[in-house]
Amino acid sequence: MTTTSSKLQGIIPPMITPLCERDQLDDPGLERLIEHILGGGVHGLFILGTTGEGPSLSYRLRRKLIDRTCRQVNRRVPVLVGITDTSFVESVNLATHAAEAGADGVVLAPPYYFPAGQAELLEYLDHLTRLLPLPLTLYNMPAFTKLVFEPETVRRALDNPAIAGIKDSSGDMIYFHRLQLLLKNRPDFYLLVGPEELLGQTVLLGSDGGVSGGANLFPRLYVTLYEAAARGERDRVEELQDIVMHISNTIYSTGRFSSSIIKGLKCALSLEGICDDFMAEPFHRFRQAERDSIGEHLEEIRADLAEATLAP
Amino acid sequence: MTTTSSKLQGIIPPMITPLCERDQLDDPGLERLIEHILGGGVHGLFILGTTGEGPSLSYRLRRKLIDRTCRQVNRRVPVLVGITDTSFVESVNLATHAAEAGADGVVLAPPYYFPAGQAELLEYLDHLTRLLPLPLTLYNMPAFTKLVFEPETVRRALDNPAIAGIKDSSGDMIYFHRLQLLLKNRPDFYLLVGPEELLGQTVLLGSDGGVSGGANLFPRLYVTLYEAAARGERDRVEELQDIVMHISNTIYSTGRFSSSIIKGLKCALSLEGICDDFMAEPFHRFRQAERDSIGEHLEEIRADLAEATLAP
Amino acid sequence: MTTTSSKLQGIIPPMITPLCERDQLDDPGLERLIEHILGGGVHGLFILGTTGEGPSLSYRLRRKLIDRTCRQVNRRVPVLVGITDTSFVESVNLATHAAEAGADGVVLAPPYYFPAGQAELLEYLDHLTRLLPLPLTLYNMPAFTKLVFEPETVRRALDNPAIAGIKDSSGDMIYFHRLQLLLKNRPDFYLLVGPEELLGQTVLLGSDGGVSGGANLFPRLYVTLYEAAARGERDRVEELQDIVMHISNTIYSTGRFSSSIIKGLKCALSLEGICDDFMAEPFHRFRQAERDSIGEHLEEIRADLAEATLAP
Amino acid sequence: MTTTSSKLQGIIPPMITPLCERDQLDDPGLERLIEHILGGGVHGLFILGTTGEGPSLSYRLRRKLIDRTCRQVNRRVPVLVGITDTSFVESVNLATHAAEAGADGVVLAPPYYFPAGQAELLEYLDHLTRLLPLPLTLYNMPAFTKLVFEPETVRRALDNPAIAGIKDSSGDMIYFHRLQLLLKNRPDFYLLVGPEELLGQTVLLGSDGGVSGGANLFPRLYVTLYEAAARGERDRVEELQDIVMHISNTIYSTGRFSSSIIKGLKCALSLEGICDDFMAEPFHRFRQAERDSIGEHLEEIRADLAEATLAP
Repeated sequence: MTTTSSKLQGIIPPMITPLCERDQLDDPGLERLIEHILGGGVHGLFILGTTGEGPSLSYRLRRKLIDRTCRQVNRRVPVLVGITDTSFVESVNLATHAAEAGADGVVLAPPYYFPAGQAELLEYLDHLTRLLPLPLTLYNMPAFTKLVFEPETVRRALDNPAIAGIKDSSGDMIYFHRLQLLLKNRPDFYLLVGPEELLGQTVLLGSDGGVSGGANLFPRLYVTLYEAAARGERDRVEELQDIVMHISNTIYSTGRFSSSIIKGLKCALSLEGICDDFMAEPFHRFRQAERDSIGEHLEEIRADLAEATLAP
Repeated sequence: MTTTSSKLQGIIPPMITPLCERDQLDDPGLERLIEHILGGGVHGLFILGTTGEGPSLSYRLRRKLIDRTCRQVNRRVPVLVGITDTSFVESVNLATHAAEAGADGVVLAPPYYFPAGQAELLEYLDHLTRLLPLPLTLYNMPAFTKLVFEPETVRRALDNPAIAGIKDSSGDMIYFHRLQLLLKNRPDFYLLVGPEELLGQTVLLGSDGGVSGGANLFPRLYVTLYEAAARGERDRVEELQDIVMHISNTIYSTGRFSSSIIKGLKCALSLEGICDDFMAEPFHRFRQAERDSIGEHLEEIRADLAEATLAP
Repeated sequence: MTTTSSKLQGIIPPMITPLCERDQLDDPGLERLIEHILGGGVHGLFILGTTGEGPSLSYRLRRKLIDRTCRQVNRRVPVLVGITDTSFVESVNLATHAAEAGADGVVLAPPYYFPAGQAELLEYLDHLTRLLPLPLTLYNMPAFTKLVFEPETVRRALDNPAIAGIKDSSGDMIYFHRLQLLLKNRPDFYLLVGPEELLGQTVLLGSDGGVSGGANLFPRLYVTLYEAAARGERDRVEELQDIVMHISNTIYSTGRFSSSIIKGLKCALSLEGICDDFMAEPFHRFRQAERDSIGEHLEEIRADLAEATLAP
Repeated sequence: MTTTSSKLQGIIPPMITPLCERDQLDDPGLERLIEHILGGGVHGLFILGTTGEGPSLSYRLRRKLIDRTCRQVNRRVPVLVGITDTSFVESVNLATHAAEAGADGVVLAPPYYFPAGQAELLEYLDHLTRLLPLPLTLYNMPAFTKLVFEPETVRRALDNPAIAGIKDSSGDMIYFHRLQLLLKNRPDFYLLVGPEELLGQTVLLGSDGGVSGGANLFPRLYVTLYEAAARGERDRVEELQDIVMHISNTIYSTGRFSSSIIKGLKCALSLEGICDDFMAEPFHRFRQAERDSIGEHLEEIRADLAEATLAP
């Protein structure tokens, strides 16, 4: 990431943030989690995103997480830091801190309180990148920000050398195809997708990889799926895609709210003994009934993985 | 606000934040603006709300604005401070600072990145109010937060003695009537409305007043309208309502985006020589064409005010 | 309605459609229902609207309902007929039938499958009214049609002499105020509101009345409320508003779906012995548990009405 | 379609409806259009869908179109007829007419005026299929109907032998994967996708084909793309996908409204001399400027097709 010669590709997990109580990092859990994820062969690490509950954390905690993560990763893979904020100045502050801590890039979804127009969004990016010490990845997340990076906006953002790639979490494959067309002549600009249910097919279609939440839990699965797709092995992709859907339909679908994915991931990581499942307000961890259910699903998925000759 | 004996009622303007450049308060403008607003006879002052571009400002600037405002107001009217945030801890931090600066209350819309459920929202309020040093006003603003305080949630929040009132900016009058029913036996709990187009009628219906953005510009108009409505003077209400609609259809409707209201207010205040119209990212001030148009509308509205024997 | 000298004002109930099975009118129920409603002193009758399940009925049944209703009403009050349709030609066909049957006006919400633009909507109205044999009432119902009659569209529609008024079911009071401003110089053009929770206040503000679903059940209540509001009797309005809210919070809020209002009304009318509560697909009548609950609420509301010296 | 042994697969174009004026079929245009489409090797024909402006047409015209189309096609390919309606009874009436005319199946999106719940939707399907003389294809089109066939609803619909397949126009690929999982053990139940931008990849992933609007204009392109994808020829899919995106970004993106796709298709077919481009209200054909622009894009696309050794 620090030079344009090494384009980001592969699996860059959006790391959950291990907490042991309000505004307190679970320090040993964080260390174990990073080693667990890196042990799966991932190609980068993205902290303070949606899955990382970034917007729910205090700035103090965000800075501490940046410091600890960069130190623990110790340049084994690139570290990207989410700086999405409603305040331009706080985004810059976080980016500055990330650079000082040794991070490799920053990730920004549009400011999400006031709904801006596309012209305003472009100007925002123009102003912001002048002040950023690290390359920027755009983060398209309309469900939570109420604002999409429209294809024409992305096209114009391509002229900005400070913008290195885009992560699309819209789940909109027509949008994906429009982005791909825009990027035909820009092999250096990477396109990653958020929803892991779409990882296999988008890599088969030529994208650069995924920011797959499930790689917190089963990093090897997503790395193997990415590699199979990058090599065009459709049968292997289909086999692993079924496991990804199994995870999506169980671990992520326990409970009724939009927070189910993060709750499910944290609960499963807690059951695996990796880190605590405390959640930042406004959410709380699963109670025992859901926890038992997640535990049963983990058994099934471990069996799936064994059948696919994949260690968890 | 500091004791339960003095219920908040009347016009509590959501103050715009005078800026002279990015992350810089327009200090003399702020002083003039506060004196202009208080000179109109308002009953309180609300800073760091939506109209105040609260979520777009750095925490440093928010704290400075709280300090300066409280000092300048000097307890002539109650000062309410917006602490809406996606981070629970930062909301508490701001509230603590507001109390130390001498503010009288805090105002909170739901955390607005992750969409929470109503049960989660109630628990959030329960956890938060235990840590708040000042009474809390709920702020219902579904258009920007994606989350409504449902009537059943408000009903249960009434049992929390730390919650003093609610400001409803939904514009939904059926919701308003449901709130009024809930508040029948709670004369101490205030109900204020956001959209100034609804000020007259909601006060006629028994609400406690309004958080009217236009009172930045024409405080006397809204105070007079409130007083006429509180006395049941329907003809006077109707006369002044026409001026309010005139402002809404001109000053607030120049430009195409959701930011038009704030841009229009800041532009008009700049034309009046009160303060700068610089805006925090992602917005920028009106350009000359819109500025000229706002200037012409100001002339018309001044004529309206003169006809209604109201000084601007 | 047939001449411009008699402007429509007051309570024009949106009549439910009594059915005894699929595609079968409950003929004696229809007769009783019309007499029950007219006995309450209403000022008109609106059939085949949303409350009348108009879009769910076959055209054969719609024509039959028009014929039976016009014959039974026999010009005691004006009859308005809903002709909202996705097909322009079918709207014209229904309007032609309504005129032949002796109806006094037609009511049209925008075509609701394809989302049209405002320019397209205006052209639609222009084309349609050339072929309509009866005056047209616009019906603003964005929740179901996905399309609002924007104020500028209404302003331009005012130039069309075939358009006699507008019924606003948006519940958006800011929109209502914008319409009122537009209608300042058009005393012949009527403005009615849909949600009965807003009847009292909008008539106090100068509107012409309401299309109140509850007037199927308690016509006298809504007529009395309208008359009190038209005379400016705020205390009486407030007293009756509480009963309206009681109905809204009980009869209309049993069950979870958007169909609750119609189901509740039909169930209550069945309990009162007026007509069957069969519903057109995709809905079905309440089951016994909900029916019992509605029965209890009816008792409470009858007590409310007695206290307000109103016969049901 | 008439027996379960011949599962529907391939390209089933949603035919536009050639009109020469309001409520008048362009008869010679219809004949030419059908021959043009069938000449491209398509595997079926779907009339009276969204692209066919079905909901905007009178019932008289719908019946006539069914008759003419079935006669002209003369069983060369299966004909599916859209019966989507807000009225259950009218859906049944259309299906009965379709069967008598010799159609092979009917297609139904949820009733789209009242928003129903999933339980109500299931019951609707249960009641409806008892009365249908032809196999039913479900049509998932949430953008226009406000209602999705949720995966659990589809799972339960699989038990209904009268339901033969589903056409998904949501564009939501995660939903697509959930459907695929449900259909693992139901090789007889077909899954088609609406948005042609997703045709190649969904067939690569194992779906049965597409209801591709562009096949009105360039049937050979979509048939070739389908066949390449069905054979797993990724390079050919990628090459043709670029042409599909070119069409999407030009022919479908002229004009601002949601009707742009149909307007663009009709305009292009008119320029090709195939049929008139008159549109049913609330829309109208493109004016000369847009028409010129479409003409230029057609030239470019013809060049694309020649390069890919495809006749238009």
